[in-house]
Amino acid sequence: MRLITFLSDFGSNSSYVSQMKGAALSITDATIVDITHDITPHNIREGAFVLSASISFFPTGSVHVAVVDPGVGTDRRGIVITTHSQILIGPDNGLLIPAARKLGDFTVYEITNTNLMLKSISNTFHGRDIFSPIAAHILNGVLFEQIGPIITDFVDLDFGNSEINDKAAKGKVIYIDSFGNIITNIDGLRLSNVLNFDKKVTIFIGKKNLRTQLVRSYNFVKKSEVLATIGSSNLLEIAINQGNAAKKLGIKPNDDIKILFS
Amino acid sequence: MRLITFLSDFGSNSSYVSQMKGAALSITDATIVDITHDITPHNIREGAFVLSASISFFPTGSVHVAVVDPGVGTDRRGIVITTHSQILIGPDNGLLIPAARKLGDFTVYEITNTNLMLKSISNTFHGRDIFSPIAAHILNGVLFEQIGPIITDFVDLDFGNSEINDKAAKGKVIYIDSFGNIITNIDGLRLSNVLNFDKKVTIFIGKKNLRTQLVRSYNFVKKSEVLATIGSSNLLEIAINQGNAAKKLGIKPNDDIKILFS
Amino acid sequence: MRLITFLSDFGSNSSYVSQMKGAALSITDATIVDITHDITPHNIREGAFVLSASISFFPTGSVHVAVVDPGVGTDRRGIVITTHSQILIGPDNGLLIPAARKLGDFTVYEITNTNLMLKSISNTFHGRDIFSPIAAHILNGVLFEQIGPIITDFVDLDFGNSEINDKAAKGKVIYIDSFGNIITNIDGLRLSNVLNFDKKVTIFIGKKNLRTQLVRSYNFVKKSEVLATIGSSNLLEIAINQGNAAKKLGIKPNDDIKILFS
Repeated sequence: MRLITFLSDFGSNSSYVSQMKGAALSITDATIVDITHDITPHNIREGAFVLSASISFFPTGSVHVAVVDPGVGTDRRGIVITTHSQILIGPDNGLLIPAARKLGDFTVYEITNTNLMLKSISNTFHGRDIFSPIAAHILNGVLFEQIGPIITDFVDLDFGNSEINDKAAKGKVIYIDSFGNIITNIDGLRLSNVLNFDKKVTIFIGKKNLRTQLVRSYNFVKKSEVLATIGSSNLLEIAINQGNAAKKLGIKPNDDIKILFS
Repeated sequence: MRLITFLSDFGSNSSYVSQMKGAALSITDATIVDITHDITPHNIREGAFVLSASISFFPTGSVHVAVVDPGVGTDRRGIVITTHSQILIGPDNGLLIPAARKLGDFTVYEITNTNLMLKSISNTFHGRDIFSPIAAHILNGVLFEQIGPIITDFVDLDFGNSEINDKAAKGKVIYIDSFGNIITNIDGLRLSNVLNFDKKVTIFIGKKNLRTQLVRSYNFVKKSEVLATIGSSNLLEIAINQGNAAKKLGIKPNDDIKILFS
Repeated sequence: MRLITFLSDFGSNSSYVSQMKGAALSITDATIVDITHDITPHNIREGAFVLSASISFFPTGSVHVAVVDPGVGTDRRGIVITTHSQILIGPDNGLLIPAARKLGDFTVYEITNTNLMLKSISNTFHGRDIFSPIAAHILNGVLFEQIGPIITDFVDLDFGNSEINDKAAKGKVIYIDSFGNIITNIDGLRLSNVLNFDKKVTIFIGKKNLRTQLVRSYNFVKKSEVLATIGSSNLLEIAINQGNAAKKLGIKPNDDIKILFS
């Protein structure tokens, strides 16, 4: 399996995505999967979350190209990150770091070898001219040492800490999914150790104050009712059964959330 | 050809789609095609129509994973349907049935074998954790008997009956396509036996009452004019040449349609 | 590498796209890449630009199916265009011509051989029933002579001329990309011969009159400021750093642009 994934903020409607794929397929044969191209334009944090939530489902050896890159054409570096299982490629702006960290130990290479890039490099589209060709060359067996030097001063990014104790949990909203489900940085496994399903809880989120319960899935409350559940990324999620919770509750990324187990 | 298609209501912008693909590609190599991910959220009926309209164009042996699944995590069953030519996988909520029926005789297996699922199964995302891995295992040659028992009490779904006689046809709107064309459940072949092209007709649709004609294609009337045609799914379709008929006429799925041949 | 790309105005959300892919994959095995399906419905000119901007990044031998086809079902012809490197398939309405011309010398064949089409041909969807099967047969080695006769009276289309001299450049807006960047028909290479980076310029675009400068990339001006740059298609582009220039400035395709180098 030779697999390249792409994630960007170009929009699903953008032909720029196809140019990246063409550039890779001109160098090597590969299976291509889109993670998403609808990251909010220039929102590195959102891209970093979606990447980190998705890559663990791909086979070992997959190469992931991620491009949310407001600094393209400036002196921001391009990087390749190797982990024990998968490879990440993109700008050195924090975008790749949460995904890398989730996979365990990792090494960051700065991309400096121009032989691995397209011959003509635009100032505005390194996804096509640099990152995607590098992905293809890696599948073709190029050594990581040939890409460029190892660096340790890469730009970092994290989603902040959450707190969980016997009585409450506290954290932040990190993502609104395509259903309007509100995904937080509160770990689902740790939460389920201290909070039983179906127990009533009070949730403070944004400017709202809600009485609800932790349930196994959306359909365990009536249609249009608010619920808390442990979502498919193993994170606490606030949702409305068959409704759009973020829109209804007026919640956005970075809003605070607190959940009282009583 | 080893082919898996995906249809869902996750949105084209959703990274959840890529997680399903990653789960399948972690088990087997396959060509992947998206049917659509923009089914109206939770609208099983719409998903069932789009699936049934699309699958006959895929090669024999294709495996179709469809996920419009408001009941995920409850006791609704997961099913695999085998037909003489293609295989369907998804929730037991009616979504797969019109497609299966269109392909002829079919057999429904309940999915019970946990060895064919991901090791860790979320309560909210069976598309990734169950349906997609099953698709990959089927391409790898797993026997249908290993999936689970045959069932006959599956949840059924149909698009209602249409009536056609010498003077009129009567039915329902079942789908609005991406151009705003209004697709009905009135069979095009049967209609063309009793109604000639270019003959003037009167159409009652929603609250409207239109004088138009059955034409071979959109461009047989002037730009912005309403027309009736037999669309690419061989169903009667009401459209506007280079316009959005559903928006202009205020039509939605389930609206009644009647066409008088005079 | 056996590669087919698809471009259309069906919408990313449309299942019609998958029907084209299924039709091709029923005839041959191929890697499939979407260029875009979000061309403004029926906008041949926009489709022609996006196709011409994208195809040069694909490998030699790639086959491109493009469908923006308001005249489907009328007597407009279907065509295959061969060039020294790639193959184009679609309606004879100008859509393919700028892409073909960009690749150098080309030959246009009218599609007449019904043996290379699906058995049942709808009047409304030649993308699925004719163009996509032809693409698959070409990958399978069918001779171009078998497709139909060479024609020279194909429908032409171009993006108009731009003028560049020592003091100014003049042209037209030809495309608004998914970030809202305004792409013109003014050649970037020729422009960079007469205008230095960072020099102040005056731009007349639509009804606006802007003082800005030609910079290497978006981030060379402050956030939310207007800039001119040479974009990734090597064309003069007016943009806003991390903003939507077309929306902010009220610009649309075909608007005039003039840039004074002082």
